[in-house]
Amino acid sequence: MSKSIFYHAGCQVCVSAEHDIISLLGADKVEVVHFGTNKARIAEAEKAGVKSVPALVTPNGNVLHINFGASMADVKG
Amino acid sequence: MSKSIFYHAGCQVCVSAEHDIISLLGADKVEVVHFGTNKARIAEAEKAGVKSVPALVTPNGNVLHINFGASMADVKG
Repeated sequence: MSKSIFYHAGCQVCVSAEHDIISLLGADKVEVVHFGTNKARIAEAEKAGVKSVPALVTPNGNVLHINFGASMADVKG
Repeated sequence: MSKSIFYHAGCQVCVSAEHDIISLLGADKVEVVHFGTNKARIAEAEKAGVKSVPALVTPNGNVLHINFGASMADVKG
């Protein structure tokens, strides 16, 4: 994959980090996935190693957990 | 300031995140500060809101704590 993927859950910490990441990387370099509207992708994120949101999965597959908004357990509810 | 500043302390988590951040943003967009060799800048980082390393301070002053390597208390020893 050539884009990073930013996973979040709409929390305040997530939205703030989303703005920063898009500003730093450029909107064309980041796919934003909001679990609140796209629960189908939770499994994919967990498989990639996402433990909490917001998180950025880089093109080479590394996971950067950025600040802390919510655990994946919270996301799954 | 126009560059982001990446603060770290040489830990494994820090070095891995440094590679990712430089790869994502470009080396010319990030100033890297290693507290192990530059303790004089610890106070500046704390003033900016850095609580743990690795952390990225964006050009607009937001702090992104990325994964978790060490607390600032650990950094100061």
